[in-house]
Amino acid sequence: MGSSSLFSLIFCFLVLFNCCFAQIEQVTSQHGQQQQGQRRSQQNECQFDRINALEPARKFRSEAGVTEIWDENDQQFQCAGVVVIRHTINQRGLLLPAYSNTPKLIYIDQGRGFHGAVIPGCPETFQSSGQNSRDRRESSQDHHQKVRQVREGDVVALPSGVADWFYNNGDSPLVLVQLLDTSNAANQLDQDFRKFFLAGNPQQELQSQRSSYQSGQHEGESRRHKQERYRNIFGGFDERLLAEAFNVDTKLARRMKNENDNRGIIVRVQHELQVVSPQQSREEEEREREHQRRPGGRGNGLEETFCNARLKHNINNPERADVFNPHAGRLTTVNSLNLPILRYLQLSAQRGVLYPNALMSPNWNINAHSICYITRGSGRIQIVGDNGQAVFDGQVREGQVITAPQNFAAVKKAGSQGLEWVSFKTNDNAQISQLAGRISVIRAIPEDVLANAFQISREDARRLKNNREEVSVFSSSQQSQFGRD
Amino acid sequence: MGSSSLFSLIFCFLVLFNCCFAQIEQVTSQHGQQQQGQRRSQQNECQFDRINALEPARKFRSEAGVTEIWDENDQQFQCAGVVVIRHTINQRGLLLPAYSNTPKLIYIDQGRGFHGAVIPGCPETFQSSGQNSRDRRESSQDHHQKVRQVREGDVVALPSGVADWFYNNGDSPLVLVQLLDTSNAANQLDQDFRKFFLAGNPQQELQSQRSSYQSGQHEGESRRHKQERYRNIFGGFDERLLAEAFNVDTKLARRMKNENDNRGIIVRVQHELQVVSPQQSREEEEREREHQRRPGGRGNGLEETFCNARLKHNINNPERADVFNPHAGRLTTVNSLNLPILRYLQLSAQRGVLYPNALMSPNWNINAHSICYITRGSGRIQIVGDNGQAVFDGQVREGQVITAPQNFAAVKKAGSQGLEWVSFKTNDNAQISQLAGRISVIRAIPEDVLANAFQISREDARRLKNNREEVSVFSSSQQSQFGRD
Amino acid sequence: MGSSSLFSLIFCFLVLFNCCFAQIEQVTSQHGQQQQGQRRSQQNECQFDRINALEPARKFRSEAGVTEIWDENDQQFQCAGVVVIRHTINQRGLLLPAYSNTPKLIYIDQGRGFHGAVIPGCPETFQSSGQNSRDRRESSQDHHQKVRQVREGDVVALPSGVADWFYNNGDSPLVLVQLLDTSNAANQLDQDFRKFFLAGNPQQELQSQRSSYQSGQHEGESRRHKQERYRNIFGGFDERLLAEAFNVDTKLARRMKNENDNRGIIVRVQHELQVVSPQQSREEEEREREHQRRPGGRGNGLEETFCNARLKHNINNPERADVFNPHAGRLTTVNSLNLPILRYLQLSAQRGVLYPNALMSPNWNINAHSICYITRGSGRIQIVGDNGQAVFDGQVREGQVITAPQNFAAVKKAGSQGLEWVSFKTNDNAQISQLAGRISVIRAIPEDVLANAFQISREDARRLKNNREEVSVFSSSQQSQFGRD
Repeated sequence: MGSSSLFSLIFCFLVLFNCCFAQIEQVTSQHGQQQQGQRRSQQNECQFDRINALEPARKFRSEAGVTEIWDENDQQFQCAGVVVIRHTINQRGLLLPAYSNTPKLIYIDQGRGFHGAVIPGCPETFQSSGQNSRDRRESSQDHHQKVRQVREGDVVALPSGVADWFYNNGDSPLVLVQLLDTSNAANQLDQDFRKFFLAGNPQQELQSQRSSYQSGQHEGESRRHKQERYRNIFGGFDERLLAEAFNVDTKLARRMKNENDNRGIIVRVQHELQVVSPQQSREEEEREREHQRRPGGRGNGLEETFCNARLKHNINNPERADVFNPHAGRLTTVNSLNLPILRYLQLSAQRGVLYPNALMSPNWNINAHSICYITRGSGRIQIVGDNGQAVFDGQVREGQVITAPQNFAAVKKAGSQGLEWVSFKTNDNAQISQLAGRISVIRAIPEDVLANAFQISREDARRLKNNREEVSVFSSSQQSQFGRD
Repeated sequence: MGSSSLFSLIFCFLVLFNCCFAQIEQVTSQHGQQQQGQRRSQQNECQFDRINALEPARKFRSEAGVTEIWDENDQQFQCAGVVVIRHTINQRGLLLPAYSNTPKLIYIDQGRGFHGAVIPGCPETFQSSGQNSRDRRESSQDHHQKVRQVREGDVVALPSGVADWFYNNGDSPLVLVQLLDTSNAANQLDQDFRKFFLAGNPQQELQSQRSSYQSGQHEGESRRHKQERYRNIFGGFDERLLAEAFNVDTKLARRMKNENDNRGIIVRVQHELQVVSPQQSREEEEREREHQRRPGGRGNGLEETFCNARLKHNINNPERADVFNPHAGRLTTVNSLNLPILRYLQLSAQRGVLYPNALMSPNWNINAHSICYITRGSGRIQIVGDNGQAVFDGQVREGQVITAPQNFAAVKKAGSQGLEWVSFKTNDNAQISQLAGRISVIRAIPEDVLANAFQISREDARRLKNNREEVSVFSSSQQSQFGRD
Repeated sequence: MGSSSLFSLIFCFLVLFNCCFAQIEQVTSQHGQQQQGQRRSQQNECQFDRINALEPARKFRSEAGVTEIWDENDQQFQCAGVVVIRHTINQRGLLLPAYSNTPKLIYIDQGRGFHGAVIPGCPETFQSSGQNSRDRRESSQDHHQKVRQVREGDVVALPSGVADWFYNNGDSPLVLVQLLDTSNAANQLDQDFRKFFLAGNPQQELQSQRSSYQSGQHEGESRRHKQERYRNIFGGFDERLLAEAFNVDTKLARRMKNENDNRGIIVRVQHELQVVSPQQSREEEEREREHQRRPGGRGNGLEETFCNARLKHNINNPERADVFNPHAGRLTTVNSLNLPILRYLQLSAQRGVLYPNALMSPNWNINAHSICYITRGSGRIQIVGDNGQAVFDGQVREGQVITAPQNFAAVKKAGSQGLEWVSFKTNDNAQISQLAGRISVIRAIPEDVLANAFQISREDARRLKNNREEVSVFSSSQQSQFGRD
């Protein structure tokens, strides 16, 4: 077991190079074959002249928030096989329960709230007493599944086909940036993302436009788009059958269809949501962090089952940085080593913070696409394809998305205000190979090979190998260049 | 190990919720990463206005039986990436040895017989003495691989590329319903199913018409269909090379091609087939069942190798039901937990029996398509897509096939004679999420979320959560409704 | 664990039938689920009338060698999802560092040399002192990653996205035959192979012509082909950004782009390459072989990490043959059992040597395509599809490539000079099912089934089963026929 996983193990050193050696065996056996699982459909074309940094393509309002969707037919998303959606949920807004045909990674860009994931077969372990005014008379204990508190910087992972809902219980908007991985093997349908709502009356704009775009290319027109309506899944059932299934009267069954509901997918909760969630003390938070530091989590099936598995991990906390350079910035990774459910989703994410004018080592993603959402600041990015042509060379700013396809080389340089982002990656243990710095391919190649390859002197080859001693995040050359060259 | 498998573990509770807790660790480690393996190609389109309950599209007779094939170009089969075939083998009929480019699940709908799977590298452990009249003079011991007895209700699993044959040694027709999984990762060829016969002269009608249909759409015409003949694989070899390979004379080599054989793929055996298979005593059968109840089987490589691994599991025995409601019916599942080879095939099956007027909880398949073959009775099925539109709402009856695509919500209600079926699923541990009943998403969501989502009172929300106490199979509301509402 | 792997385990007996029984448990647990990993995209069509034995389609010269590429649009390569490339590197030639979007298997057909694989995150464990004339004055220790010596008969495995280089330090040409697996799940881009060069100025001809061919079919024209240039990846970066990243002056950064370099991808090294690699003593070589004989390698993460994992395995050494028949020839397999990294690549290879006029048992590949490169001699091959039609029946000779698609039946017969080849297989534990000989499907089927299927006597059925006692490689019938029939 695990001999095949040594590869991925070592790759980890790049990112987790500060993890101690004694854990190797453990990690190896726990994550044996982790790379094996990575499978994606390859029907998408990745022939690029040009990639663009994109803003959302369509936007629609609900009663208590706004939803924005990036153009799923843009070639960078077609190639990566993903869809990006941003929900802005106002105070006391509830994003209605729904499931989709893709696994999701959700980055909490702002605010805080409740997240309820409805995992089939898990017990109703939480108990909320309904102290709603109308209900006070009866002893109304409500049992339901675990509800999790989320806050800025959390990455939430959700398997395909599992329903969830969000509620903003904070005092500022709750902003969620979601990656839906349509090419994921867990999706056995086609490349359209599909949202199945358990309630409400979703807007037409939410529907994927990928298939209609594609069929438009091939003379036909989309069957799906002829459908003038988009309803929740109860909308399609006969109300008498529903009534019988739920053992209620047909009037209530009809209410489940929400046919005349104009609130959209984010609704305003009438009275503050009567859901309790245990408050975490500062101490517990510390313990949790401690726990999360242990690589590989536990997961032996006795201490922790999926029902109480962690679905979230905060990557905004500077203390948890995997790479930190006081002159340049930091990188924090969430992957299947610190959030084991990602093993199942085949996704991971990285948070990057570059100080003003600092830069990331030029690098390529070995085994994943990297879909980058700029959370703050601005900067310059270059992305280079196999023919040595830049497919992107330009400025990016807060709120934009840009994809570095697998194996394409990329470099980021922060502007004068710094640059921050979260990169979603299509592998549960995404690995990068750096071109410059202390851990880089150039350093791994013998001087003499470099000298002959580049037709330069051995002294120059040595400069390429050794002049940049930093790792991954580099301080601006004004500082470092004086010291060395 | 196995932290990533907790997800699937918990899902199991839904189906196997009566399995005891102490087995968790075992199951977890044995089936770590089981969901990871599930990968399917996504080139098929799943854009439905409408799904139909289908009868076979073509039918052809052989000497000792009939073969029927459902239309592989119907969009439900295109989406699910499967082909359904039914063989009816008369008494003393032999379905000739063949292998195909897909894994297969075979449900024995009627009758009993022998099944011979020819697994490369396994020893010839069975010994039949040829007591055929012509041979009596010589001591003709024949050694061959294991032959298995199959009977009504058995599900037989066969990996891709492995040859097998069936023989009807009973006194009624042997009816096999086969699912061929063309989208399975084990198939490295295209989406056509291919049968490679080791003997006989197969009928042209058996050939997949998928590629010809598709190429018809794109102006060309199928290359395969220009071939006017369909022969066994020896047909393509030079008979002198064959003679040399088998070290026999060319006359015998020529016989292997069966060129003038008009018997088709199911032939009548001249004298009762001289194959012995040990008879199972009632006691042994009990022990076997006992064994099968232990989750995960054994499979440590010492007690049991693939050569003597179980390839079959009976799902018709009421005693083995996973869900049983004396007022409504039962469900029996065969998956990689009780038939470990399914782990390798990435397929599973479920047998359902609904009593008259009973119904299944509305549900969706989380991680699989569900291809349902009605074995007896009739009833009503509704299937609803992501836009809340019913893609199917109609009657189904014995002998029809209908597919519930992944994530589409479906409900079944038995007619006055009851409804029985077998559902083939494209995941070795297929999971469903139920909408109503004691184990359901509605029950897992806080009352207050439901009340706000559906715009109903908390009392009504509580009714939706609690009025139906049954699990999975529900008695007709005439019975239950009076007790509660 | 492992219960699902029993299948593959037993298959192993076919190839490794001489491996001793006590190792079963070990192998099982180490290679549990190995077949599960095998996933390929299925978008390619495999509709054949005809397959051809092919020579390279295009050829271009570099300063110190020649590169030849087989037509990636030939239907056999489209179906198998692979590309075949042959590099001939002259003495003192250096194949420049590059990585590609596919895993690679490289067979060293002639010569010897150095291979440097640059694995991200691995330490620079090798130390070469620069004794180059210009440098002698300074103590110029150079640290770099491990450099491996390769020689004729080695198979070298390289994961997707990992850069490598070759150097010919022998006194004859170094000939590399490479299989690039574009359908491999590790490739998340499309079906084009892409070479990303870290240095040099690659020739335009190297670029994949698959996408341009396909887009040609669909009226458009390739975007990639409008690009008139092909450069190394530094070519696309701004030279000031490069200078900053490497902390060197822009002049040196500009040199990395090699813009006016006309040497191509194989360059002549000025002075003998100053790279040291420890010389292996005869004793060590023995020990290594001993080690390699232990099935499954070790790989527990302590003794061996990926950084020092074996990437190569020699399959030309007669002592290592898995099947040997002194009258017919031998077969030697490299798969994930003896080169564990192949588990990760999902590829394997087999070397075959047939003596004059000997033949291989007719067989089919159960779980892989087989891409066969003829290394020496000539012979006759027949390949038969599911309809019993021969898609190939002809002579093959040294330097040609021919593919036996998954499940297609094939037979090889050596000419009067013998026949040698290496077959690349698209599964890390490829299995074949033989039609004739001591381990064959015909022998596994009861006599009576054969007699009824072929309409022959039981005596003839027994001849088919028993007349050929050899395994896999058969002596010419002139020898064997006399002894038996």
